[in-house]
Amino acid sequence: MKIAVIQNRITRDKNENLHHIKELIDEASKKAKLIVLPEMFNCPYNSNTFYKYAEEDFSTTTNFLKELSKEKNICIVGGSIPEISDNNLYNTSYTFDRGKFIGKYRKNHLFDVDIKGKMTFRESDTLSKGTDIFRFTYNNFNIAVCICFDIRFSDYISHITDNADVLIVPAAFNTTTGPLHWSLLMRARAVDNQIYVIAASPSRSEFLSYKAYGHSMIVDPWGKILIETGEKEEIIYADIDKDYIYKIRAQLPIR
Amino acid sequence: MKIAVIQNRITRDKNENLHHIKELIDEASKKAKLIVLPEMFNCPYNSNTFYKYAEEDFSTTTNFLKELSKEKNICIVGGSIPEISDNNLYNTSYTFDRGKFIGKYRKNHLFDVDIKGKMTFRESDTLSKGTDIFRFTYNNFNIAVCICFDIRFSDYISHITDNADVLIVPAAFNTTTGPLHWSLLMRARAVDNQIYVIAASPSRSEFLSYKAYGHSMIVDPWGKILIETGEKEEIIYADIDKDYIYKIRAQLPIR
Repeated sequence: MKIAVIQNRITRDKNENLHHIKELIDEASKKAKLIVLPEMFNCPYNSNTFYKYAEEDFSTTTNFLKELSKEKNICIVGGSIPEISDNNLYNTSYTFDRGKFIGKYRKNHLFDVDIKGKMTFRESDTLSKGTDIFRFTYNNFNIAVCICFDIRFSDYISHITDNADVLIVPAAFNTTTGPLHWSLLMRARAVDNQIYVIAASPSRSEFLSYKAYGHSMIVDPWGKILIETGEKEEIIYADIDKDYIYKIRAQLPIR
Repeated sequence: MKIAVIQNRITRDKNENLHHIKELIDEASKKAKLIVLPEMFNCPYNSNTFYKYAEEDFSTTTNFLKELSKEKNICIVGGSIPEISDNNLYNTSYTFDRGKFIGKYRKNHLFDVDIKGKMTFRESDTLSKGTDIFRFTYNNFNIAVCICFDIRFSDYISHITDNADVLIVPAAFNTTTGPLHWSLLMRARAVDNQIYVIAASPSRSEFLSYKAYGHSMIVDPWGKILIETGEKEEIIYADIDKDYIYKIRAQLPIR
């Protein structure tokens, strides 16, 4: 099955972001049946403004993804967007398959980091944690979804990927933690759990305050990076293969 | 606290191996108070000959380590050796601190791998699994020990390193799995658990059938490789620092 990861550039204008994402999905859907978007793909990654961009279920952005998945006859894992529900904000990923709402996932582990002089960010000041996990099946692949900071929790990832084939990770590491840990963690989770890991980041912005690391990638169950973007806007593609997963698990039985 | 890792060359002659290890420990003990040896440091890594080299508790090799730790006033994590007990063989690590036996660890996950045309090895044909974990405290550091293939099990490692500062990993990856996964897994476990990881391998042999990867390393809790050997015999040193562990955990709270 061919997968596409869209590393889009983001502006402060939600409508412009959606319009642009549509162009990118138009292109990606010519080749791929499953399309993955980045964390907070429709707004800047900024704790102070999530509220401004937040939507309830079945509003602008989710309706947009639903229609697009129907029109293009594809499955879209819609990265994440700020969700508002009962006055709480969440970092939420919505998945649609050919016009059907499949489910949503609220980020379980909020990104609170304080590396003096380099990177300070506190999602927990404005966001609430999710409590559920989200798994779905598409084209016979068992797919788990997590968001960004979740990837650092090895026990959590092995729990949600138990009996899964693929882990999808909309994420926005930054230029401090990205060079240190991005590919290390994506590759390690692939090897630990003998699964494909698909990581989607926004492109690095010249004008937004948060500098996303980029480097979206598709990693195979042997820990090999099949394809990786740079920092700029780009669509990448790779084929994933269930037989290859079985082969790796037979060679090195750790599950 | 300064740590030394000895990456020794191994022959088929146990006495020669012990004699040579003594020379290396003599040298390492001039600088370090904790010395780590590789997996199967006193014999070739070969399932078919473990029995020939195996010892019961408090025999040649363990007495040798005990005396040496007393004489040099150091702690030795004695990599591993083949242990025989009630007719069962184990891959066992013995630790001695200044003449005192601290404890032993039997490898919990046996190395069974079958990568067609590249690497086939089945420890479980001749060895039995351990069932206990092993932790000890030295110089105020909480230290966990695992052996080689154990490192692939992220849940197990996060369990044994809960509230630990250091993970010691006597290991013998090979020239197939080493280039793919050795530094990836050592670094990932350090970052996942925010601990120092100390990995000790035998040097690569020109004449033994099993080609150890080498590349012994000391990794800090941020995932940075502080020092790393090549393939040849070498002693490496690094200082580990409890305050630095606390600093990393405060910057990026995941525990």
